[in-house]
Amino acid sequence: MADTKALTTRAADFSAWYNEVIMRAELADYSPVRGCMVIRPNGYAIWEEMQRALDRMFKDTGHQNAYFPLFIPQSFLSREAEHVEGFAPETAVVTHGGGKELEEPLVVRPTSETIIYSMYAKWIQSYRDLPVLINQWANVVRWELRTRLFLRTTEFLWQEGHTAHATEAEAEAETRQMLGVYRTFMEDWMAMPVLTGLKTDSERFAGALRTYACEALMQDDRALQAGTSHNLGQNFARAFEVTFQTAEGTLDYVWSTSWGVSTRLIGGLIMTHSDDNGLVCPPRLAQYQVVIVPIHKTDEEKTAVLDTAQRTRAVLAAAGIRTHVDAREGIKPGAKYYEWEGRGVPLRLEIGPRDVAAESAMLARRTGGKKEPVPLAGIAERLHAEMNRMQIELLEAARARREAASIRGATREQLIERMAGPGGFVYGGFCGAASCETEIKEQTKATIRVLPDPEFRSPVAPTRCLWCGQPSVAEAVWAKAY
Amino acid sequence: MADTKALTTRAADFSAWYNEVIMRAELADYSPVRGCMVIRPNGYAIWEEMQRALDRMFKDTGHQNAYFPLFIPQSFLSREAEHVEGFAPETAVVTHGGGKELEEPLVVRPTSETIIYSMYAKWIQSYRDLPVLINQWANVVRWELRTRLFLRTTEFLWQEGHTAHATEAEAEAETRQMLGVYRTFMEDWMAMPVLTGLKTDSERFAGALRTYACEALMQDDRALQAGTSHNLGQNFARAFEVTFQTAEGTLDYVWSTSWGVSTRLIGGLIMTHSDDNGLVCPPRLAQYQVVIVPIHKTDEEKTAVLDTAQRTRAVLAAAGIRTHVDAREGIKPGAKYYEWEGRGVPLRLEIGPRDVAAESAMLARRTGGKKEPVPLAGIAERLHAEMNRMQIELLEAARARREAASIRGATREQLIERMAGPGGFVYGGFCGAASCETEIKEQTKATIRVLPDPEFRSPVAPTRCLWCGQPSVAEAVWAKAY
Repeated sequence: MADTKALTTRAADFSAWYNEVIMRAELADYSPVRGCMVIRPNGYAIWEEMQRALDRMFKDTGHQNAYFPLFIPQSFLSREAEHVEGFAPETAVVTHGGGKELEEPLVVRPTSETIIYSMYAKWIQSYRDLPVLINQWANVVRWELRTRLFLRTTEFLWQEGHTAHATEAEAEAETRQMLGVYRTFMEDWMAMPVLTGLKTDSERFAGALRTYACEALMQDDRALQAGTSHNLGQNFARAFEVTFQTAEGTLDYVWSTSWGVSTRLIGGLIMTHSDDNGLVCPPRLAQYQVVIVPIHKTDEEKTAVLDTAQRTRAVLAAAGIRTHVDAREGIKPGAKYYEWEGRGVPLRLEIGPRDVAAESAMLARRTGGKKEPVPLAGIAERLHAEMNRMQIELLEAARARREAASIRGATREQLIERMAGPGGFVYGGFCGAASCETEIKEQTKATIRVLPDPEFRSPVAPTRCLWCGQPSVAEAVWAKAY
Repeated sequence: MADTKALTTRAADFSAWYNEVIMRAELADYSPVRGCMVIRPNGYAIWEEMQRALDRMFKDTGHQNAYFPLFIPQSFLSREAEHVEGFAPETAVVTHGGGKELEEPLVVRPTSETIIYSMYAKWIQSYRDLPVLINQWANVVRWELRTRLFLRTTEFLWQEGHTAHATEAEAEAETRQMLGVYRTFMEDWMAMPVLTGLKTDSERFAGALRTYACEALMQDDRALQAGTSHNLGQNFARAFEVTFQTAEGTLDYVWSTSWGVSTRLIGGLIMTHSDDNGLVCPPRLAQYQVVIVPIHKTDEEKTAVLDTAQRTRAVLAAAGIRTHVDAREGIKPGAKYYEWEGRGVPLRLEIGPRDVAAESAMLARRTGGKKEPVPLAGIAERLHAEMNRMQIELLEAARARREAASIRGATREQLIERMAGPGGFVYGGFCGAASCETEIKEQTKATIRVLPDPEFRSPVAPTRCLWCGQPSVAEAVWAKAY
């Protein structure tokens, strides 16, 4: 039975609220293993919908799935100098197997570039073998000191795309294409608006030439890095000797990319849409899009009501709407409403004897508004329209919230003031110096989330670095981040 | 470009043939990590089709997916006495994380009963919380000394179902139900006939009350354990204190089950159907069910032929047939045929200028028979029928092969003779003594694969143990196994 205590409100304690939303919806739980979470069926169902949508998009852009080993010889990590520096400190290391100490310890993959490029070196000989467009759905491990359910866990689930190309231009195009796929997914499926742009060197993937990211703003006005796409140049190709014969007969290193999103997205979904009553899940990613609650007192009523409920379910299912009839006995309708509200089901249909007589059902939306009767005739079309509207409204509301929490052309004082207070996205000029980034981080906890892509840039380009006053080389967006 | 050397034949060296089939079809590759394989896109695509079919069947029987941690505290394994004895010797152990030695080493899951029951203890309080019907798709690690691609690798992919029930009868029914699901999948999708039945104590899952298995016979007449379903009784519930309040208000331990199949199935599929020309894949699990090879010399021919090829592809795709047009330039049609044959694509359509004129295509089947022209009108129905027929023929051929390699009512001498020679399934009486099992294994390398379910038992029940002559307690099926 669900706990019926009210949730801590977002205003009172956003972090406590976040954990309580997860617990009430039974999305995940803490495990006995430090920093590792259990993804419960309600949470995993969202991940499955996310996987289905993303996998379709990856395949539509020509990628295939494969699977590479969990373990990586420790020496492999060291072959790319920046890569080992970035990842070695947070690895889990297997030192014993089958009861014996291993000659060379094995690292549990924190990401798979090294093991994958060792294979690409074997598979790629000629320009005819290119491009190689492979994605992997897998678990990875990064030893984290402070963990948060979904947002930062020692083990997490993700996908990692790894592609190899004959030219630098193709690799850059692929990097940008996949950033676009992520953005489309986040906006059209998660209803989570994102800024896209380039990372500065300090936030670049260890071993990449350039890292692009999608950055979202949560309801507490902190930023979430939701997905990254890296142009790796020839760095890993050189480290793993991935060469190919060009069409002209010369030998060159391949140009490569990698890109990934993880179960962290579920944390982003929660923090973008949910309210003080629990999870709000955008219809396109909900395990159940519609729950039907039958209401009856007598046995006669029960027969008629359950019959109508099941027939309605069948009609909706046939129209591709994921529908569940909650026919549990011994639980009052109000308790069911409460439970499904906490689980974020977008639409609820209540069907009682009077509804059966009127050939209608009472419709309630998870995102509010008056309950209203809807005729059972044409109900699938009606609910499709409701869900489409809700999907758009959630995106628009999140975008409006983000814009209200953003300032452009900020001064040094405004950056300091914002970061001491609510947070949000602060746009301003940046001189390009790492020293300014470091100082800002130390004094305000804010980091540059992205140097935004053209469509997100301010109408008037800043001319000076908001921190040091030197000429600006690019507009930057600062925020405190998860 | 594909290697064009003929494969080693099955008759000459089955084991070499097996590896060469995998390499030619690019299903998998050896990795730099001892005992771990890389599943290449062509192999992973078969796994994805397997997952899709099985996942649908699991959900249709009321199961939900979830995800539990990769790491298990070493002490957890020891809580169930038989379990630790069975699995501890083959574990990989993480001793360091984040640069520090861990207080308690973590085992990389060899199977997840222990971590899952530690969570069930938290989630289950009352009979109202039961049954819990959860499945997990995951990677697991078992430190193997001798490894074979797909059949036995240090890391492999699998699904593991873990269910908890209020009564022993329900747990037994679930165990049997999932064995049935596996059998249906193996026969209807993989076209791989299996015997089902009970394992003897020596082959029982470490910690189970009873283990049931699906056993298939490969083309070299060795058996492959293809899937297992375990009734765990209350063993793990006791070890992890998973109790619940019954409807009568008393406290009891839950009754539980677990069941799994793995990427080993891909090995079973290869060894059941493939021939000396490479992979043969049953249509229902093929990545591409139909490949279209356009044939043209002049530019004018090319335009017409490619147009017809693409239109045909669209027609087939609309009918739900997975179709690929191999329009690669610079590769002769014959080389393409050879490549797709090695990859096991069930049907090939060749379309040249004369076919365009005749509004037909030349159809070739992977499993032989004459090439024949088929009209493009109604081609989807025709190819659906071809695939259905091929699916049934593959199953029937495998079943006939298995029966030809089986003997019933065998004597001790026949068992010895069979196992010294071809192998196959040997049915005979069994006294139930572990000593007979041990002696037989030592002298013939054969093990009891199952005590077969009623429908697989011989018409005349054996009365004596074929080894010691004592009264038989059950008919058994012996074979040399992978």
